[in-house]
Amino acid sequence: MFSNIKIDKDRVVYIQLKDYIKDMILKGLLRRDEKLPSTREMASMFNVSRNTIMCAYEFLQDEGFVYMKKGRGTFVSNVKVDFQEKWKVSWESKINNYGRLSEKLDIIKHEAKWQKGMISFKSIAPDESLFNVDEFKKAFLNRMAIEGEKVLNYGYAKGYKPLIEYLLKYMENKGVNIQEKDILITNGFTEGFDLVLSCITKEGDGIICENPTHNTAIKIMRLHGLNITGVDMERDGVNLNMLEKELKKNKFKISYFVPSYHNPTGIVMSPEKRVSIYNILKHHDIPIIEDGFNEELRYFGAHVSPMAAFSGSGNSVIYIGSFSKILFPGIRIGWILGDKILIDYLESIKRSRNIHTSSLDQAIFYDYLNCGNFDKYIKKARKVYKEKYEFALKCAKQYIKNREVLGEGGMHIFIKLKDINSRELLARCYRRKVIFTPGDVFYVDDKGQDTLRLGFSRVSKENIKKGFMIIGEEIQKLGGYV
Amino acid sequence: MFSNIKIDKDRVVYIQLKDYIKDMILKGLLRRDEKLPSTREMASMFNVSRNTIMCAYEFLQDEGFVYMKKGRGTFVSNVKVDFQEKWKVSWESKINNYGRLSEKLDIIKHEAKWQKGMISFKSIAPDESLFNVDEFKKAFLNRMAIEGEKVLNYGYAKGYKPLIEYLLKYMENKGVNIQEKDILITNGFTEGFDLVLSCITKEGDGIICENPTHNTAIKIMRLHGLNITGVDMERDGVNLNMLEKELKKNKFKISYFVPSYHNPTGIVMSPEKRVSIYNILKHHDIPIIEDGFNEELRYFGAHVSPMAAFSGSGNSVIYIGSFSKILFPGIRIGWILGDKILIDYLESIKRSRNIHTSSLDQAIFYDYLNCGNFDKYIKKARKVYKEKYEFALKCAKQYIKNREVLGEGGMHIFIKLKDINSRELLARCYRRKVIFTPGDVFYVDDKGQDTLRLGFSRVSKENIKKGFMIIGEEIQKLGGYV
Repeated sequence: MFSNIKIDKDRVVYIQLKDYIKDMILKGLLRRDEKLPSTREMASMFNVSRNTIMCAYEFLQDEGFVYMKKGRGTFVSNVKVDFQEKWKVSWESKINNYGRLSEKLDIIKHEAKWQKGMISFKSIAPDESLFNVDEFKKAFLNRMAIEGEKVLNYGYAKGYKPLIEYLLKYMENKGVNIQEKDILITNGFTEGFDLVLSCITKEGDGIICENPTHNTAIKIMRLHGLNITGVDMERDGVNLNMLEKELKKNKFKISYFVPSYHNPTGIVMSPEKRVSIYNILKHHDIPIIEDGFNEELRYFGAHVSPMAAFSGSGNSVIYIGSFSKILFPGIRIGWILGDKILIDYLESIKRSRNIHTSSLDQAIFYDYLNCGNFDKYIKKARKVYKEKYEFALKCAKQYIKNREVLGEGGMHIFIKLKDINSRELLARCYRRKVIFTPGDVFYVDDKGQDTLRLGFSRVSKENIKKGFMIIGEEIQKLGGYV
Repeated sequence: MFSNIKIDKDRVVYIQLKDYIKDMILKGLLRRDEKLPSTREMASMFNVSRNTIMCAYEFLQDEGFVYMKKGRGTFVSNVKVDFQEKWKVSWESKINNYGRLSEKLDIIKHEAKWQKGMISFKSIAPDESLFNVDEFKKAFLNRMAIEGEKVLNYGYAKGYKPLIEYLLKYMENKGVNIQEKDILITNGFTEGFDLVLSCITKEGDGIICENPTHNTAIKIMRLHGLNITGVDMERDGVNLNMLEKELKKNKFKISYFVPSYHNPTGIVMSPEKRVSIYNILKHHDIPIIEDGFNEELRYFGAHVSPMAAFSGSGNSVIYIGSFSKILFPGIRIGWILGDKILIDYLESIKRSRNIHTSSLDQAIFYDYLNCGNFDKYIKKARKVYKEKYEFALKCAKQYIKNREVLGEGGMHIFIKLKDINSRELLARCYRRKVIFTPGDVFYVDDKGQDTLRLGFSRVSKENIKKGFMIIGEEIQKLGGYV
């Protein structure tokens, strides 16, 4: 009867036995009131101690699968497994428009998939080999020693208080006036942006942003049914004339900007342009969502204040920050800094969505930051990524000639091919085992079909060179202007 | 100039110095091209090594706040902090209906607040002193050693693969047929329920559920604009006649049930009733969302299969599970088990909401479960909560006489006062420093004004006795029938 059980020596034996017997009962292979072998018999059958068998039987009793009669043994309970005849629901037909649109806009499901041996320039995730895991472990053990039980129980929707305090100070250190402002901790930028749009926009509202822009942001704006207006990018940020023109032409509820290492172009908006945009939007009274994307990664040049710093004691900028684009994206931590009243509403929405962000992760992250580890990490990361960026730029100039290369650092560069379709190029490169992100996914309209983004954060120098060479060759073959 | 800096010996000194100087520059207290004191001067001023000062200056240079001239020293960069005059946005007027409703339904913000020294029966969170933090630490260190860098980088929207595999097996062990089914990992039950409703319902759709029911579920249904129909509860689950009547009268997109330790009544639905409900809903072709709430906590009686087990190779039940109601709620982990096609859509929605649930938390949790720790924990927890439940029941019978007490275990009991308003009772008890959850928040209509939920998981026996006595006395004073 128990002949086909395989004991895995690495797992607790009595749990395996318990699960096995449970399974047999559920499948009807052990019937009601049937007597199980004695603990002695079982022990010799599996060559384990009687204690182990007793433990398994006790668990089965606790879970209601067996009952024990003193001096008589262990018997199978009256477990009803009343399988009903098949009832098939056609889920495909039950999915609503939001579900369908989510799937349609889910780039990961529809783009060329990475396969073993390929060189991929798709990712802009950080290189995990730079993570200082030892410091992270220390932070974990430290928090566990101080308040292990506490951070493993429910926390607050707004976030873990010491982390909120730390980030308020951190934002103040970027020149942001935090009077009458507050912070909500989110599961990364994505959740932050989704929460803000959930709170202040409704279907059909207008939003104005850079074009191209962060593709996840485009997805979220579309899922909220917003009318998206994109403003063309110049070398130092959006075209101000076009911005003014669009603002006069249409009504907008809110605006969205990525001033540093703009995704996908890699452009850092000049301080002058930041001020101009701020003033133009102020004139039209259209609040700003500022995406703090990779601001921390700035390699050179004088400090540039985030737009949130310009507003002083004003409250027109909602700043969404996240370290996780450069550090530990696996623990999903971001934050929204904004007006106290707004944050109060966002807190309620956050609670209705998932109660709160993992208190454990927030506590570890706080400890890690508070010990100064982030500053040490970012110094190392800046150096490594700067070197890679410069190498990538050199390779781009060498192999991808006469094309416009954008990007002032960060983890990616952006290329305009002008007269070549980047999806056609991708199809060719794919055959030669090189993949990248076609730029059209970053455009809010049908522009950008001649563009591509090359992320290099997790590609070795050798492969950057090799990959860019292949891309360059395929561009040559596709002809186009030289 | 640097006189008012206070060095905290517990934090890295050069980071404190760096932040301090940054702050002065941002505030305009150090002007462009101003020379900073030499490292020697600074070192003696703060009684630290010159190396510490050099480190601080280097960081400032990296961040663009200062520049260095060889042999001449360190100077303040041209940092523009262009504070614009105040631009005040009236956020209150910009919040949409969803934001307002979230805030309105946010019970935590509107209910009587706990104050120091009070006995609170509001919480049904687990007692954290039962957590085995050492095993949790082991699980963390184990995962870190095996794949520390990996789990700290981006993961998959569907979830951490070993955890998904583990949970599929776990559900199979409950008698669920997992063919053509899949699992999505979520940030707890709350997110799971929200994702499912987001995917298959639209405003105005009908949903049928127990009345009373889980208040967070009511909140989420309301936020989705659903028409909620509640079916009255009997001692062993909903009234089947009323269920049939409502199903004939109205159209419903979906149904929602909490078969085990139903929140708030604590009722465990009988196996017979589970089968009846399943068959009735099958007849009307209305799929079931089954909330696996605290199913694991069952103290006695024969095993009762979840409704998801009845459907065999059918696909009509969406099971939402979560250990975090009893173990580690601070790490927000739950799961949805359902038809593969449905899970595929839910995965895209999950990705658009927050990319994925913390990979770190999932990996630790997997390791913890896989080592058999959960089985050991639940044995201990069952014993403790059973004892508390029995004690609470005894106290209720002793002090809250002649009232209907519901609840077959779990972490709470539910009381029907019949002719007394529970909010009036709460106001009186509050003055005597005892609080509980008035039952009306669990009703989908205006019923339940004479009910209350008493959670005892984190209240000592002494305080259970004392608190129940006070509640009983106040009931006496309020009169009503005896």
